[in-house]
Amino acid sequence: MADKKGIEVYLDLLSQPCRAVYIFLHHNKIPHTVKTVALRKGENKTPDFTKLNPMQKVPVMVDNGFVLTESDAILKYLATNYNAPEHWYPRQPERRARVDEYTAWHHANTRPHAAKVFIMEVLLPRMTGQPTDPAKLERALSELDETLEKLESMFLKRQPFLCGDDVTLADLLAVCELMQPLGGGRDILKERPKLATWRSRVQSALKDSFDEAHAVLYRLRDKSRAKL
Amino acid sequence: MADKKGIEVYLDLLSQPCRAVYIFLHHNKIPHTVKTVALRKGENKTPDFTKLNPMQKVPVMVDNGFVLTESDAILKYLATNYNAPEHWYPRQPERRARVDEYTAWHHANTRPHAAKVFIMEVLLPRMTGQPTDPAKLERALSELDETLEKLESMFLKRQPFLCGDDVTLADLLAVCELMQPLGGGRDILKERPKLATWRSRVQSALKDSFDEAHAVLYRLRDKSRAKL
Repeated sequence: MADKKGIEVYLDLLSQPCRAVYIFLHHNKIPHTVKTVALRKGENKTPDFTKLNPMQKVPVMVDNGFVLTESDAILKYLATNYNAPEHWYPRQPERRARVDEYTAWHHANTRPHAAKVFIMEVLLPRMTGQPTDPAKLERALSELDETLEKLESMFLKRQPFLCGDDVTLADLLAVCELMQPLGGGRDILKERPKLATWRSRVQSALKDSFDEAHAVLYRLRDKSRAKL
Repeated sequence: MADKKGIEVYLDLLSQPCRAVYIFLHHNKIPHTVKTVALRKGENKTPDFTKLNPMQKVPVMVDNGFVLTESDAILKYLATNYNAPEHWYPRQPERRARVDEYTAWHHANTRPHAAKVFIMEVLLPRMTGQPTDPAKLERALSELDETLEKLESMFLKRQPFLCGDDVTLADLLAVCELMQPLGGGRDILKERPKLATWRSRVQSALKDSFDEAHAVLYRLRDKSRAKL
């Protein structure tokens, strides 16, 4: 068992995987300290942070000296060592394998495709002062659409959550990614009733911690909408 | 524990993650049956295979009716349920987290970057009859180089294997990806002594199963070299 002295997490809540880690810790009442690393201020590139994580990425977890990166690994470590309810990362071999299957798929599908739309609609225009290239955006939306289609027709085909009858780390990682384009005022699940219902289901399961983690994204959405 | 009736795996040994699964099964003497799915013949798109895996991808594992995709998940399932030596996927929390950390990183780094070079130098020219675009190849090689640099300066900084003192699933997944460009006659580790030594170390740990799994890639390399 891990030492329970307390966990430190380095996060920026505008980062999708950071929100997943934040929600998991809050929802499961795992004692921890949040250290904010503001990406827009480049705080992930300071010498101190680079020493902690040479990749210069968030989230980072430190558990009594043990430094761990990658949200996927952090969540599995926390679920295993901090007695979170079993449903998050089931021990039963087939059910666990389903979560590992989705998370592996996630890295090359849900994550890059949803992130790309946010980057093109929100980050790049801010950084370059140039408007979004419509042809490139169209391509990114079409790639994202393929991922959404697979989420509905495969993962959610016969079950309420991505990996079965209960919420798991897979749903947590996925929902945080799929929320991201909302920062640019775009709800990518609007015409996807099956995924939209799933999102409500995940949101209900996560209770207050979901809206709390997304507060900064909601503010960004409100600003984007005001501009339109 | 999983039923030991025997495992079926659907593989094409020209696919990097398929080789990782094949090596793991062979090296650990886990009873199994290989069903070859020849990607170049489109056997992954037949109605029967699509029924098994709607993603139309290999590898797929079937364990007594339980169908699992994604090499990462398959390897972790096998390591956990088939009593392979502990070092592959350690139970100790910090050591296990290291393997989960690398495998998460792998999907967005080692895998796409090494694969892209192979696709550009081998697959695309075959499919289109056009030579490789030198500017695009240059860009792909430079992205791959960043990944190789991180593998050397971070993961292998102070240890012989990617996640510590012994070979794990991380090394197995990584080595199969980093071998792939050899199919086009390109040894991407030639000027990377630290990674080249690591590869020899992994190869020694895997014994005959390594060369056996790579035989088809070696033949492709020999053909590429004959053409030059």
